[in-house]
Amino acid sequence: MKTDVLIIGGGPGGVITAVIGRAMYPDKNFTLVRQEPKAVVPCGIPYVFNRLQSVEENIMGDAPLEANHVSLVIGTVSKIDRSNKRALLEDGEEIVYDKVVLATGSIATAPAALKAPGMSGIFVVKKDLEYIRQMREKIHAAKNVVIIGGGFIGVEIADEIKHLPEKTVSIVEMANHLMEQSFDEEFAIKAEDFLRQENVNIFTQRQVVGYEGDGAVRAVILDDGTKIDADAVILSIGSKPNTVLAEEMGLDVSPLGGIKVDEFMRTSDTDVFAVGDCAEKRCFFCRKHINIMLASTATAEARSAGANLYHIKMIEMNKGTIGIYSTKVGDLVLATAGHTEANSIVEGYEVVTGVSKGIDRHPGTIPGKHALYVKMIFSRYSGILMGAQVCGGDSAGELINTIGLAIQSQLTMTDIATIQYGTHPLLTAAPTTYPLIACAQDAFHKLHSGK
Amino acid sequence: MKTDVLIIGGGPGGVITAVIGRAMYPDKNFTLVRQEPKAVVPCGIPYVFNRLQSVEENIMGDAPLEANHVSLVIGTVSKIDRSNKRALLEDGEEIVYDKVVLATGSIATAPAALKAPGMSGIFVVKKDLEYIRQMREKIHAAKNVVIIGGGFIGVEIADEIKHLPEKTVSIVEMANHLMEQSFDEEFAIKAEDFLRQENVNIFTQRQVVGYEGDGAVRAVILDDGTKIDADAVILSIGSKPNTVLAEEMGLDVSPLGGIKVDEFMRTSDTDVFAVGDCAEKRCFFCRKHINIMLASTATAEARSAGANLYHIKMIEMNKGTIGIYSTKVGDLVLATAGHTEANSIVEGYEVVTGVSKGIDRHPGTIPGKHALYVKMIFSRYSGILMGAQVCGGDSAGELINTIGLAIQSQLTMTDIATIQYGTHPLLTAAPTTYPLIACAQDAFHKLHSGK
Repeated sequence: MKTDVLIIGGGPGGVITAVIGRAMYPDKNFTLVRQEPKAVVPCGIPYVFNRLQSVEENIMGDAPLEANHVSLVIGTVSKIDRSNKRALLEDGEEIVYDKVVLATGSIATAPAALKAPGMSGIFVVKKDLEYIRQMREKIHAAKNVVIIGGGFIGVEIADEIKHLPEKTVSIVEMANHLMEQSFDEEFAIKAEDFLRQENVNIFTQRQVVGYEGDGAVRAVILDDGTKIDADAVILSIGSKPNTVLAEEMGLDVSPLGGIKVDEFMRTSDTDVFAVGDCAEKRCFFCRKHINIMLASTATAEARSAGANLYHIKMIEMNKGTIGIYSTKVGDLVLATAGHTEANSIVEGYEVVTGVSKGIDRHPGTIPGKHALYVKMIFSRYSGILMGAQVCGGDSAGELINTIGLAIQSQLTMTDIATIQYGTHPLLTAAPTTYPLIACAQDAFHKLHSGK
Repeated sequence: MKTDVLIIGGGPGGVITAVIGRAMYPDKNFTLVRQEPKAVVPCGIPYVFNRLQSVEENIMGDAPLEANHVSLVIGTVSKIDRSNKRALLEDGEEIVYDKVVLATGSIATAPAALKAPGMSGIFVVKKDLEYIRQMREKIHAAKNVVIIGGGFIGVEIADEIKHLPEKTVSIVEMANHLMEQSFDEEFAIKAEDFLRQENVNIFTQRQVVGYEGDGAVRAVILDDGTKIDADAVILSIGSKPNTVLAEEMGLDVSPLGGIKVDEFMRTSDTDVFAVGDCAEKRCFFCRKHINIMLASTATAEARSAGANLYHIKMIEMNKGTIGIYSTKVGDLVLATAGHTEANSIVEGYEVVTGVSKGIDRHPGTIPGKHALYVKMIFSRYSGILMGAQVCGGDSAGELINTIGLAIQSQLTMTDIATIQYGTHPLLTAAPTTYPLIACAQDAFHKLHSGK
């Protein structure tokens, strides 16, 4: 078959490239090839264990593809001949294309010893409906579940499984704290305290050295000799960009992982684009390689790729990636954008922070309020906002997006101290204590009183 | 007595001027004079009728003043002698000052015929604890309550009172729709539909011509002859800047209302500042006089005044006012920022709008989701965001602040189409359909497909 634009991969990055591409180039035809008969919503995976009634409830439907007349092919691209612009599928089919977009995603990583292929009951977090179905069944049947890796996915799964009846849930994390990549200590501790109250066992600064069990896992063994009973183990240690096809195609791939791309998601071959987890990410502040894999990032990249497939129609507002995300543990929302304070210091930035401690309603007597703690990190001399973290109620999920936009607009602490904003008793902090402004002021006063 | 900075008025504008002023000028002493022994939280007033257990729960405590060593004087300033920098209080006390800040707020307006001074049971919305206490008692005892004026305060009070047992609540509004100043028709209709489901009677395009009752109000008479039974009437028609003292001082006052101020809230006398409802507001886009009275606006102005009392320490990010606010009717949140579409057209702007209809969670199967409808208004040729409205769940309260920041940063539709943002299944729309981006894209496609 023949297509103008061939998209390889059916995750959010692939789908949005197709949808935006079609809207921008209505005369071109688009084909999307994906391996899975049904695609899953990546961020919904932790919620299939409890909140969603079935794995089917987490299917990402094909309506956007159908509505935009994007041809869908279920299959695996095994080889691409760039000089002749032909893609070969495993079933022998050949697709002739004009532009190709790699949206091949990422691969869950774990040392072979931890994957323990001969042992049942050990899972990774894989965007595969049938795999997740089996995983869900096993977890529902298990009494003791151990999660290896305390990043946000591990934490979300732990919190979710804990709400199923009669489970013992443990998290093992080698760093000092859960979610240490994205949160400063004081935020991570809030999540840990909450999980402990829910009776989740947390083992930080611990590594898994092996398993007990023959055929099926029975226990997880830590480096200090601790043995944790386990009928099921979930590995959520990390992922790496899936660059297999890109390497086979001879495209430039970063030695640190990820297909090299320019501002408009073009690879070293300008007829080949890459978007999402498989594409290299560079830091918004210093342009160095960073490891951010978020569906929101993938879709933002996809919009750029889709718009700019044939002509550069849209200049990017930003020249690098900022990680912006939120997560929820019980009723506690943690959200982060840009650099943490710890991370800034490691990277060599001289910073000043501002904090705000309050509530997310007003006055304080109003029902339904939640504590709201915000910390913002500013470049000490340029004053530019570099990152922020929020711990609060549900409103933190959108509050972090205001902060994310402030980072992208390179606002300074005095800009933020003078912004206009809206408040409401039932929805936000008080106008007198609005947290973004309170943080900017706190940082300003620390800076100018010499602290 | 003698003070460096004298602040007249104890609302959010006055308090924040004092707090920020003290932080910026720690060597100066500050005195705040207010009439009320206890100050109330202005935005909390609608909630004293039901959600708050007593009017005392809506007191704005004096802790911020005490913590910042601001002297508090309860009294009324009757006269200010600018040439000698002296303020005279009604009780005869004299305060010698160096800088004075007018934070005298606004006065609820209504024609004398509607205030009907001889008739009991008729109230305005007044920031006075004792008055509100009496109003609350009367409303609790009443069976039929009529609210005259369908702006957001009237709507909030109606929704709140409706949740008390056995009340008949009616709203009378002369415009075509409730909240017409701040929302386009399709948003106003959503609020009206919701209120009607709650059995609130809505009379739009109707004016009140008088009352029935002798001594106590018994009914409200409309211009078409309709008679609405009423044991209590709340007038929420509007407010005007309280410029009595400013006029007496000979300061420049706009003929349209409001004390004339510069970027840093200095009046025509640079030793006299004015903040909040009493100060004139000018449009962010065209600098014309506008009528915006919000606590969030007052506090933003107060931060500027406080920082810049003796030296201009902070340049304003924005050179005019944007109205940003949210309100809640039942579980429906309506939020607005900047110009409505209707308003833009009246003002002569050529615009293009983008809309997004979705939900505020993902996937669509997740429990607790709420419909989310967003509309953004862009300048047709410059592409700059001029305003937006949101109708959704609680997250709309912070979503409107991201939009507000985008307006202040003068982002264009292609800037917004390429922003980075964070999403979470339990907290936001999906990354594939994030509403700000969906709106920007919709506007872009309308524009470039000639629609």
